[in-house]
Amino acid sequence: MAHTYKLSYFDLMGLGEAIRFLLSYGGAKFEDFRFARDQWPALKNSMPYGKVPVLEIDGKATHQSIAICRYLAKQFKLMGGSDWEDLQCDMIVDTVTDFRMQAARFFQETDEKKKEEIMKSLIAETVPYYMSRFDAQVKKNGGHFVNGKLTWADIYVVAVFQFLQKFLKVDFVNDYTNMKALQDKVLNLPAIKSWVEKRPKTDM
Amino acid sequence: MAHTYKLSYFDLMGLGEAIRFLLSYGGAKFEDFRFARDQWPALKNSMPYGKVPVLEIDGKATHQSIAICRYLAKQFKLMGGSDWEDLQCDMIVDTVTDFRMQAARFFQETDEKKKEEIMKSLIAETVPYYMSRFDAQVKKNGGHFVNGKLTWADIYVVAVFQFLQKFLKVDFVNDYTNMKALQDKVLNLPAIKSWVEKRPKTDM
Repeated sequence: MAHTYKLSYFDLMGLGEAIRFLLSYGGAKFEDFRFARDQWPALKNSMPYGKVPVLEIDGKATHQSIAICRYLAKQFKLMGGSDWEDLQCDMIVDTVTDFRMQAARFFQETDEKKKEEIMKSLIAETVPYYMSRFDAQVKKNGGHFVNGKLTWADIYVVAVFQFLQKFLKVDFVNDYTNMKALQDKVLNLPAIKSWVEKRPKTDM
Repeated sequence: MAHTYKLSYFDLMGLGEAIRFLLSYGGAKFEDFRFARDQWPALKNSMPYGKVPVLEIDGKATHQSIAICRYLAKQFKLMGGSDWEDLQCDMIVDTVTDFRMQAARFFQETDEKKKEEIMKSLIAETVPYYMSRFDAQVKKNGGHFVNGKLTWADIYVVAVFQFLQKFLKVDFVNDYTNMKALQDKVLNLPAIKSWVEKRPKTDM
């Protein structure tokens, strides 16, 4: 019997988009519940540990976006082929969090001048640091992050980069041939292409 | 044939201790390479994505402490009994990272007065927020985080709390009966007890 899925998140790609990509890839119908920022204070207490995204699976709340994505990957046959390959997927996914947390400093800073400096260093230093390494890894692994085949790590990273590029206002993937090819590959998977065409258009 | 393990990390418990706990639990011999803070700039470039801990497994470098712990858990039979239970483990482990990242704000802040405020709010708000929820989950699940049996989530959380309690200078686990019982259980596993007795004594 088909499972039921309800995703609760802001009206953003953000940390919800990788979950939406994976559910789409798996052909799962899901309720895409998006709430406005001013609804959040009223909702926060009802969420596990006061955070979103939350995915209700058959009515049971699950949280932590990466944990959810890994679980969905298992259901939709997107894991690596061994414990070692799964470790490679996990390493990349958590490294993207490190990358993303650098960008999060921009939001945390309140001083406008410092915000500008953070943005400059993100574009000039953080992006090339991570992207050059990701690109080399994808090149070495035959066009995917792990062992020349599609895994959830590919889909996760492309989904997070959807929002990171919007946020940084730079299509930074375009400068990296192998990452660009991987992004094209993921965005052209029929179920994901169809999701991207119909999803609400948001700032990030 | 036995695998070889070399852990590279600062002379701290920090993010290395959960890896050391798991290797000890699994009865694995490992080289516990600890470097001084002033050696780090020279070492940083040799580490994947410029970070530690790094665990070399049979000479191959792996990184991202949680990814490494999950991989070791698979080798040492510490996973949940199903995809769903593994999701519960992953949710808790990543939630501990959220908790830990709140504490990391203390290090990032340079203003002494603000540091003091952050420490106060960590003790008065962050610790009770997370600990009361962890305690309730352990109570509900028969003395463990997931389904009444030992998983890597139990060992991971207790190991991270070893350093967080040193850092906050409060044995905060003592105030939560179920978490205290779980901590005692993990610290009394013979292999972990033996590791804790012989490990270098560090500030955090």
